[in-house]
Amino acid sequence: MPDLPFDLTDPRLAAAAWSRIVEAPDPAAGALVAELGAADALAWLCSVAGGRSSVGERRWRESVARWAPRLDNLDIRRELDTLRALGGRLVAPSDKDWPASLADLGVNQPFALWVRGRVPVLAVRGVAIVGARASTSYGQHVSAEMAAGIAESGLSVVSGGAYGIDAAAHRGALSVDGTTTAFLAGGVDRLYPTGNSALLEAVAQAGVVVSEVPPGSVPSRNRFLARNRLIAALSSASVVVEAAWRSGALSTAGHAAALSRPVGAVPGPVTSMASAGCHRLMREQGAVCVTDAAEVLELAGGAGEHLLEDRSAPTGLLDGLDPLASRVLDALPARGSAPVANVARAAGLSVSEVRSALGRLELGGTAERVGGSWRRQRRREPRRG
Amino acid sequence: MPDLPFDLTDPRLAAAAWSRIVEAPDPAAGALVAELGAADALAWLCSVAGGRSSVGERRWRESVARWAPRLDNLDIRRELDTLRALGGRLVAPSDKDWPASLADLGVNQPFALWVRGRVPVLAVRGVAIVGARASTSYGQHVSAEMAAGIAESGLSVVSGGAYGIDAAAHRGALSVDGTTTAFLAGGVDRLYPTGNSALLEAVAQAGVVVSEVPPGSVPSRNRFLARNRLIAALSSASVVVEAAWRSGALSTAGHAAALSRPVGAVPGPVTSMASAGCHRLMREQGAVCVTDAAEVLELAGGAGEHLLEDRSAPTGLLDGLDPLASRVLDALPARGSAPVANVARAAGLSVSEVRSALGRLELGGTAERVGGSWRRQRRREPRRG
Repeated sequence: MPDLPFDLTDPRLAAAAWSRIVEAPDPAAGALVAELGAADALAWLCSVAGGRSSVGERRWRESVARWAPRLDNLDIRRELDTLRALGGRLVAPSDKDWPASLADLGVNQPFALWVRGRVPVLAVRGVAIVGARASTSYGQHVSAEMAAGIAESGLSVVSGGAYGIDAAAHRGALSVDGTTTAFLAGGVDRLYPTGNSALLEAVAQAGVVVSEVPPGSVPSRNRFLARNRLIAALSSASVVVEAAWRSGALSTAGHAAALSRPVGAVPGPVTSMASAGCHRLMREQGAVCVTDAAEVLELAGGAGEHLLEDRSAPTGLLDGLDPLASRVLDALPARGSAPVANVARAAGLSVSEVRSALGRLELGGTAERVGGSWRRQRRREPRRG
Repeated sequence: MPDLPFDLTDPRLAAAAWSRIVEAPDPAAGALVAELGAADALAWLCSVAGGRSSVGERRWRESVARWAPRLDNLDIRRELDTLRALGGRLVAPSDKDWPASLADLGVNQPFALWVRGRVPVLAVRGVAIVGARASTSYGQHVSAEMAAGIAESGLSVVSGGAYGIDAAAHRGALSVDGTTTAFLAGGVDRLYPTGNSALLEAVAQAGVVVSEVPPGSVPSRNRFLARNRLIAALSSASVVVEAAWRSGALSTAGHAAALSRPVGAVPGPVTSMASAGCHRLMREQGAVCVTDAAEVLELAGGAGEHLLEDRSAPTGLLDGLDPLASRVLDALPARGSAPVANVARAAGLSVSEVRSALGRLELGGTAERVGGSWRRQRRREPRRG
């Protein structure tokens, strides 16, 4: 057993090797690599797996038993060659392009990222837009609109490259020439699902397609779930657009919440099973109801950034009126006029309150005096200079 | 000025008179009646308004000036005759049918209720279902469904008798022979809006139509807003089904919140302006997202009542499996079989972990041994006895 056929002391090769050996997340492996560094940790693993040194503690023995089977025939240079042939690049934690936000994952941080596309996009602040594969046209529409708005503001739309909501999110970002990040569960050599391969090629042009597992790795169920933690960790906020009551998309929200990152959910018809998971997130997990890109940016934004404009500015006829004046205006007869005493009785106000309110209404051009009585004034367009 | 033409010492007549004199809510009138009782408060008002005694404090002078205009020609017996002719009944705070929940309004409590229909329904615990007149067919559907579920559980569906969401709520309750309460802004002699008069007649058969203003009172804008506090106060919870960004229905929610009663909002498509107010309630006012009658009953319910059944009971193939077993099952080849060592490498687990998981999968009937290898077992229907 192993003496690996490549330079064990190269930290980037070692990081790549760990991403092949370990089925992430594996806190023991994360702790070991954090403690010793990828190269020394790998040398230690080869030494104990090869029987040249022994492990005392039981939990380490169990871990080594879990990692050792993948040391057989391991030559990470082959996977790196595959990546290079696709124009891709390995990004290790020591590289300047490594996304700082992944550090919040602690021992569950990935060992390396296998990246196709514009590597610097990894460092762009991201917002995750995720959701069901079995989405409705409503959900796809909202996903694309939100993603476009987010991308237009300069953030990267992070998603999982799946059918449905994910694909619509990537497309929305691309539609405004924005940047977007597709985090795949399998290797980036195999653009999965196949039906999205043209879309994912386009993502790799304008943004990045990235995975924590080397080329050749299949996208297993386990890796889909593990991948969701990376989508959440790369993003300032995660938004679920559509999700069934039990849906993988909810796991991304769970990871975001575990990282204390804000979670948004898009409401939909209660009659749509595709929105049931979103409503559940709001009810049970405290997800914030978000209805457009501006609200998502507010959710993701730091203090003062992306503040929503006030939508409650007065617009209606009665909006500028104080409650008393509004009551008096309502008490004026629909047709004809009435003396102050009658208006007071109708409004349930004193004569002096009514007089004062009528004065204000007169100034505002909504009531007028006719002899000793008062009537509504038909609203005129303000004159133009 | 006034010596009123009816027995000033009859507390029920006096309560009825106050409901005519005062444009509610009027905290000063509420405090006065609470302090002196309706009859003595009325005698005092007649005395000071008639100049037979004087008022010292300025705030009381202003209040009297507000109330006095409606003492002219006041004879509340006429309105009571109108009500009786319609088969209705006055309910005063001293009556046993007076709804106790209104006491939470304090000085803004109504002086009397003018009721048509089955008076005891007033004491049935209520849930308010309110919303926009300009509703969509989606909103009307949800309103009717929720109301039916609430009425079936024995609660009364409280609403405002308006077109749209309110009407659908009343109809939903009637459709299951439930009870429902329509709180009108104007007098109960005039079933407003006219287009809903047949519906409101039906409400008066199965439940109650009620108002705090006497017959003959017009449903002014001011009274609509005032009426909303009564809908909220009569209900254990208030739910807004559809509402525009700025909508009167939101005022009911505001009153419920002010009374520390729970507020629910029904989500809808973010593309629907008719749901914008509901989403706003969730975002800005902490309204709870509710999607069906069971969730509304949970919101309204006391401890232990109407608890939701757990919807997360396992249903899928992998649901009962521990994460390790699920990973091992995924690592088994789709076709054919594989030795334990290969499964361990594919799963990223140790050989002993895989052996133990395969044992559990075999017991569960999802994996089986073939010689020295393992394969997936096609799922069979459980045999019936």
